[in-house]
Formats: sequence, C-alpha cells, structure tokens
Amino acid sequence: MSRRRRIYEGKAKDLFEGPEPGTLVQYFKDDTSHEHKKGVITGKGVLNNRISEYLMTRLGEMGVPTHFVRRLNMREQLVREVEIIPVEVVVRNVAAGSLSKRFGIPEGTQLPRSIIEFYYKSDELGCPMVSEEHITAFGWAGPQDLDDMLSLSLRINDYLSGLFLGTGLKLVDFKVEFGRLWDNDEMRIVLADEISPDNCRLWDIKTNEKLDKDRFRQDLGKVEEAYQEVARRLGILPEGGPGDVKAPKLMQ
Amino acid sequence: MSRRRRIYEGKAKDLFEGPEPGTLVQYFKDDTSHEHKKGVITGKGVLNNRISEYLMTRLGEMGVPTHFVRRLNMREQLVREVEIIPVEVVVRNVAAGSLSKRFGIPEGTQLPRSIIEFYYKSDELGCPMVSEEHITAFGWAGPQDLDDMLSLSLRINDYLSGLFLGTGLKLVDFKVEFGRLWDNDEMRIVLADEISPDNCRLWDIKTNEKLDKDRFRQDLGKVEEAYQEVARRLGILPEGGPGDVKAPKLMQ
Ligand SMILES: Nc1ncnc2c1ncn2[C@@H]1O[C@H](COP(=O)(O)OP(=O)(O)O)[C@@H](O)[C@H]1O
Ligand SMILES: Nc1ncnc2c1ncn2[C@@H]1O[C@H](COP(=O)(O)OP(=O)(O)O)[C@@H](O)[C@H]1O
Ligand SMILES: [Mg+2]
Ligand SMILES: [Mg+2]
Repeated sequence: MSRRRRIYEGKAKDLFEGPEPGTLVQYFKDDTSHEHKKGVITGKGVLNNRISEYLMTRLGEMGVPTHFVRRLNMREQLVREVEIIPVEVVVRNVAAGSLSKRFGIPEGTQLPRSIIEFYYKSDELGCPMVSEEHITAFGWAGPQDLDDMLSLSLRINDYLSGLFLGTGLKLVDFKVEFGRLWDNDEMRIVLADEISPDNCRLWDIKTNEKLDKDRFRQDLGKVEEAYQEVARRLGILPEGGPGDVKAPKLMQ
Repeated sequence: MSRRRRIYEGKAKDLFEGPEPGTLVQYFKDDTSHEHKKGVITGKGVLNNRISEYLMTRLGEMGVPTHFVRRLNMREQLVREVEIIPVEVVVRNVAAGSLSKRFGIPEGTQLPRSIIEFYYKSDELGCPMVSEEHITAFGWAGPQDLDDMLSLSLRINDYLSGLFLGTGLKLVDFKVEFGRLWDNDEMRIVLADEISPDNCRLWDIKTNEKLDKDRFRQDLGKVEEAYQEVARRLGILPEGGPGDVKAPKLMQ
C-alpha cells in the first residue's frame, strides 16, 4: 500500500517513516476495536484523517502546538515525530462510559465541572487509570510536562466544546495524547495522535443521538453515517461522501 | 418604562435596581454610538439581550463565572451587581479596527498569536489604551485581579472562537468587562456587562462579510439584519424575528 517503511502497526492507524527525518506518515485505517470486539467501519479512515486535520489545524491557529504538518492524501497525513508520553488524558464534561460505570452516575449527567483523568497507555494492562503520583513516580512525565498537558487539555476542551456546540453537538468527553518535540535543545509538549469521533463522545444537542465510536461499542448501527455527519457539520465532508484512494500518492 | 429605580443610563443599556439586594436589571436599548455618531438599530436590544444570555450561560456551564442570573423578558436580564473594574479587556485574533490603524496592519491579517489589550474605561478620556503598569499603579485592579481577568479572557476567547467558527463566523476580536463579586468575605472576579455583536467583531468565514457593530461604524447598512443573522446562526433567533415588548413584566 506504500513503499515507505512501516514502523508501527496500531489498532486504528499505521505509522510509516516520513519523507524527512523527524517526520512520520500516519495512515488512517477503517479498523476499529473495543475490548475484544473488532470491526471495520468503511470510510472511517478517510473521515478521521480529514476531521483530525481540521481540528488540529484550527487548534494550531489558536496557539495549541500540535504534531500536524499537512494532509498528504485521503488516508495519510504528515506529522512531526514525537516521543509519545504514555499517558492518555481524558477530559469529561458530561458523565458517560467508564465514569458512569465507576461512580454509578447516569449517562448524560452534567458534571459539576470538567474532570480530567489520566490513563496509562498500555494495551497489555488494559490502560489503567492512574494518578499524577503514579505518572511522576514512574517517570512517564515530569511535573512540568503534566502541567503543560493539563493546561493544553483544558484549552482544547474550551475550544472544541465551543466548536462542536456551534455545529449542534455536545462534546461529552474526549481522549488526547501528547508527545515531546525537540527543536535543537528546546523541548515542547505538543498534541499528537488524532482527534476524531474515535476518541470524542459527541451527542446531538437536541436528540442526544450519539455520533461517535459508541455506536460501534454499543452496536447501535449507522457508525459510518455518524462519522460522516460529524464531518458534514464541521463543513468538511468531501463532496460526494468520503470516497477513497486506491494508491496513495507517495512523496519519497 | 419601568417602575424600578434607574441607577445608571448607559450608551447601550440602562441599569435598574433589581428585585433583591445585590442584583440589577440590565435593560438593553436600541441606541448605539461610535465616537460622536449616534444611531438607533431597531430590535438590537432584544437581540443583544438574547445573545448575551446565551453566551454567558454557555460560558457559565464551562466554569467561567459571570454576573448573569436570568433573562426577565425581551429587553431585560437580571444580573448580580458587581463592582466594575474600570478596565476593558480586548482580545484580538485578527487585525482590525484600532490595531490596524495604530500599527498599519491591514485589516484581516491573522495575528501571530492572540493579543490582549487593556483600555481604561472612561468616556471623558476616550478610553485610552493602558498597560498593566498603569492599572496596578493607579489601583484600578491588583496583580491578582489582572491575572484572573487575563486567564478568563483567554478562556473566553478559546470557547467563543470555537463556538462562532462552528456557526461559520470568525471571532476577529472582542471586548469584555469584569467585576468584583463578594460572597460574604470571598471576592471573585466575574465576567460582567454583555457579549454581543456590539462588542465582538464577527466575520463570515467564507465571504468575510461583517456581522457586527462595524456595519454601523462604517455605514455599511443592514445593521439589524447582521445582528439577527448572528442570533440565527447561534440557533436562538426568536420565532418570527426579534419582536419586542411594549411593557416589560415587572418583578418588584
Ligand atoms: N506524532 C507522533 N509521533 C510518534 N508517535 C505517534 C505520533 N502520533 C501518534 N503516535 C502514536 O501512533 C499510534 C497511532 O496508532 P493507533 O492505531 O492509535 O495506535 P494504538 O493502537 O497504539 O492506539 C499510537 O500509538 C500513538 O501514540
Ligand atoms: N453586573 C454589573 N454590575 C454593575 N455594573 C455593571 C454590571 N454589568 C455591566 N455594568 C455596567 O453597566 C453599564 C452598561 O451600560 P452601557 O450602555 O454598556 O454603558 P457604557 O455607556 O458605560 O458603556 C456599563 O457601564 C457597565 O460597566
Ligand atoms: Mg490509538
Ligand atoms: Mg458599554
């Protein structure tokens, strides 16, 4: 599918060596999974590539540093290679998913304030929830890194909550990953990975209809249609639907 | 127009004693002005009352404290009385207005990052631009107040930039006012005054059409239509247009 060297095969994306040192190509797949369930959502990779490009570009314009460089084609984008911090940051505005389960709070309950959670990024361990103590004690991130991740996550939440509300969607919660990016001797924490309906919960403001990966997790059907609807509301649905490419243009 | 005691007659709003101590009623007028030019924009007060209610409510839900309590009728809203800090905070994302003039930057130029400015709220002096030095030296606000005003203004910019973008509008810049609110012995800085097309510059994303007070300042016409369009995009245009009330219901 690409003559580039694949350096990582993920659950939703593959990573390839980029055209220049310090860059990577993210290839967005249609594969999806939840615990032991696996599936394919036709066209998801194309949509997530486009949605993540759009959101990272807008966040970048607002001064949130990201790994995003540019989209290469329907399924690939060029990013700066970073040292991923193995801590997933979850920001929640409304109770749902594991928070509802853990604390017995009915899904849909507005939280008293936005709540941040950290998860250790380890599939083998099932991505356990961790505290700042664990993170700094085990050296996954330093206190300054954590501070940066926290304040960036809150800014992302402010901006994306507004953006999605403007399109009639409630940003219930989302997960982001950060990485360390070196410019000569200077290190910055930047937003990495992706932002898409794979890692955001998005509910229609009026009907509470779910337009995100929960449609797959909970077997609600119309998964691709939901991702398309998110792109459509953001004003970025490629004309004539997501479409696809057979042979991505290479830039070697 | 109201049996409440009027305690302030402003350029765009009048303030009345509220039904309970520590509250005020803001009455939104159709009057508008720019330097020495005065005008009436029919229906503006109704629209700004509704738009400010909506934006303050959403910001409140995001954890930005505001003076807003509830809308009372088409032209009035109940707010907590605060001690207004006589410093207007302007946040700019794109060059326009006085910034373009002062620095010779063409209107529409994306700024390298969001720029905050402070103006001393004094009509007699023509609201001069001031620095943090002036503000703390003259005692208009302390360093901690300023810190709070700054970080709240940046949060407001993040959220509103997203929200307006979601509706196809670019938030070019805006002006906010803050006040001190006491709960027993505790003081908090809260967002006060109003947020509306009177103090935001809003441009259509695609056409760059201005949908704000610049239509009045620059004699572009269709001023009321522009304010209506903003309300419509936010999904809050009262059915059948802004309408009005002859005799506001009183709550004495
Ligand atoms: N800019 C980047 N540099 C290096 N690694 C990245 C970057 N952005 C994302 N990654 C990593 O690439 C992988 C993306 O593939 P994905 O399918 O999401 O993987 P996973 O199954 O590990 O979640 C993730 O492990 C993510 O941490
Ligand atoms: N919650 C509040 N408590 C006290 N004063 C307020 C509050 N909110 C706004 N104000 C003040 O009320 C006035 C609103 O009327 P406006 O027509 O905007 O006046 P101005 O002509 O002074 O700008 C402003 O001076 C503003 O500072
Ligand atoms: Mg992943
Ligand atoms: Mg005013």
